Amino acid sequence: MREIYLDNSATTRCFPETAELMNKLYLEEYGNPSSMHHKGVEAERRLTEASAILAGILKVRPANLIYTSCGTESDNLAIIGAAMAMRRSGRHLITTVIEHPAVLETMRFLEEQGFEVTYLPVDSEGQVSPQAVEAAVREDTILVSVMHTNNEIGTVQPIEEIGAAIKRRNPRTLFHVDAVQGFGKARILPKKARIDLLSVSGHKIHAAKGVGFLYIGDGCRIRPILFGGGQQKGMRSGTQNTAGIAGMALSARILYDNLEQDNDRLCRLRDLFISLVTQIPDAFINGMGAARRAPHIISLTVPGVRAEVLLHALEDKGVYVSSGSACASNRPHLSGTLSAIGLKGDQLDNTIRISLSVMNTEEDVREAAAAIAELVPFLRRYTRH
Amino acid sequence: MREIYLDNSATTRCFPETAELMNKLYLEEYGNPSSMHHKGVEAERRLTEASAILAGILKVRPANLIYTSCGTESDNLAIIGAAMAMRRSGRHLITTVIEHPAVLETMRFLEEQGFEVTYLPVDSEGQVSPQAVEAAVREDTILVSVMHTNNEIGTVQPIEEIGAAIKRRNPRTLFHVDAVQGFGKARILPKKARIDLLSVSGHKIHAAKGVGFLYIGDGCRIRPILFGGGQQKGMRSGTQNTAGIAGMALSARILYDNLEQDNDRLCRLRDLFISLVTQIPDAFINGMGAARRAPHIISLTVPGVRAEVLLHALEDKGVYVSSGSACASNRPHLSGTLSAIGLKGDQLDNTIRISLSVMNTEEDVREAAAAIAELVPFLRRYTRH
Repeated sequence: MREIYLDNSATTRCFPETAELMNKLYLEEYGNPSSMHHKGVEAERRLTEASAILAGILKVRPANLIYTSCGTESDNLAIIGAAMAMRRSGRHLITTVIEHPAVLETMRFLEEQGFEVTYLPVDSEGQVSPQAVEAAVREDTILVSVMHTNNEIGTVQPIEEIGAAIKRRNPRTLFHVDAVQGFGKARILPKKARIDLLSVSGHKIHAAKGVGFLYIGDGCRIRPILFGGGQQKGMRSGTQNTAGIAGMALSARILYDNLEQDNDRLCRLRDLFISLVTQIPDAFINGMGAARRAPHIISLTVPGVRAEVLLHALEDKGVYVSSGSACASNRPHLSGTLSAIGLKGDQLDNTIRISLSVMNTEEDVREAAAAIAELVPFLRRYTRH
Repeated sequence: MREIYLDNSATTRCFPETAELMNKLYLEEYGNPSSMHHKGVEAERRLTEASAILAGILKVRPANLIYTSCGTESDNLAIIGAAMAMRRSGRHLITTVIEHPAVLETMRFLEEQGFEVTYLPVDSEGQVSPQAVEAAVREDTILVSVMHTNNEIGTVQPIEEIGAAIKRRNPRTLFHVDAVQGFGKARILPKKARIDLLSVSGHKIHAAKGVGFLYIGDGCRIRPILFGGGQQKGMRSGTQNTAGIAGMALSARILYDNLEQDNDRLCRLRDLFISLVTQIPDAFINGMGAARRAPHIISLTVPGVRAEVLLHALEDKGVYVSSGSACASNRPHLSGTLSAIGLKGDQLDNTIRISLSVMNTEEDVREAAAAIAELVPFLRRYTRH
């Protein structure tokens, strides 16, 4: 059976070039970048190359990048690291109700440690208002964390406007952006958007699981959260994952080399899919009215059909989608975003997420939409029994 | 030029089988283990298999294993996690002066947070005394951290005796063992040795950089240090590094399937190397008198020859060794172990580490020893100029 993988916001398949490069590092260039001999220097050169690529994409200095083990660690390092470094200047943080658990649960941890957190609402399309952010920033606000692209419905936040609003109100307040779903899909320029801290994950951009990075702006002082050998200027101890890092940079380069063309194609696939599935009676797309939407994430509510049932029925046809976001999939009803935009009761359970990647074709999208259209009437009858 | 890699305590080359398995997961079984569909189930099965292998080696339950991004993270999670969970029962911790920076720097962080740490000395062979540990354990001691195998000189600690001593004195005191250099070389049974927390790193056992695990004993309650989607029962959020974990388990299985034979061979190579290099006038091996020594780590002091100079001269002949431990190689003079066993002044700078793996041959060892013997008289003359 042909596999149609439409769960790319949960994780992606590695690019073959990336897997090949990693294999080379596992078997040939396997040195420890801290070693002084040739094998170490060779490994360190791979890190230098990776930083040059990633810094070039963000238009920042390579020294601004710290490698981590995942988006979650990047978020934790940014938020806990900033809170610990700045706790003498203030104990107030701001975020939104639709952030990923890596941000929300980290905020809850800080609340236990005596910090105060403001959770901003979103509108019915999942948009955060820059005015609301500006109004919430106080003299003692040390950090604002707003995601770039929402992982459940694909709404893209007005990051530049939010960055400007924060700095207008309090230039010392740090701006953290979780770009785990946005990096590789959008051109994100931290300096232009006044971003101090930016989290990225490798496995969402066709690189390996177990690697990510955090951009830390000049003059932004945060404390490490892992202690040890002092690698990465003491900001993240532990031997660097050289293969994962080199692979992540290569995947990023492949994506950014062709970004606008790929995004145009993804938007066409997305819109084609939407036009096909919205012919199903009562079905609707969440976040459709947002001013900015990701090219790859579609949140589809099909009243009368439980997401889990539809997901498994699609799976039998080789079509892989997600119910809610994968990261909360062990704990349904945890979808902050769907409730936050006003979905209620059964609607929350009747929503699936389709997420595309550059590896998907028009055929994938047509077949998946046809499978959904074919299954829904049957599953609806089944549900009514 | 043929490469003779003798820096296996810094990092190792991946086993080809391990690289091949990881490649398969990158390109075929790339699902997110939290996803509910087939690609997720397939990925989760790889984790289940890995845990069964690793738990089988340690003779523990698979549920006792938490995957991390490296040995450093495992050490941090064990020590900070235990301290945060138990701070109401006590604020005293014990460790030794020869631990890896991942333990020592984490202890320093806890001292800043109001904890008290006792640093036990070692004898001239780098051995920790179980009696000294027992005498140091108090009513309010929450954790003792002692490494299994020292990374600089290869002394193996009497872990079982230390475990028994701790529990005799205070059954509530947790016992953490950093087994980053010992796992894959020794049969370590946490239950027999009364170990509550055991740290392991993948890249020291011919698996990838960027993966490790922490064994957490039954009834040992620690707090997570990274917050997010609640993976691994909330103990370590972040999408699991499925390829890295599966690869680490495969490498561990390969090593443990043939452990005694390999260790016999490694001991013979080690002793052959020692017999050859100790013919150099005044050269000596550190930790030789220890009751238990690792089969793969040799610390060689050659008075009159700076380690860095010898390292680079050997590198020109394709022989890769280390000066001190790789993790501290960006900061020479940081060797706690060499000072702790009584090396002084120039001796600290005159010491190299040779670390073997199952990939090394007798030819490697003979050639490396011959290269050292040939270089030393020349470098000594050079130093005297």
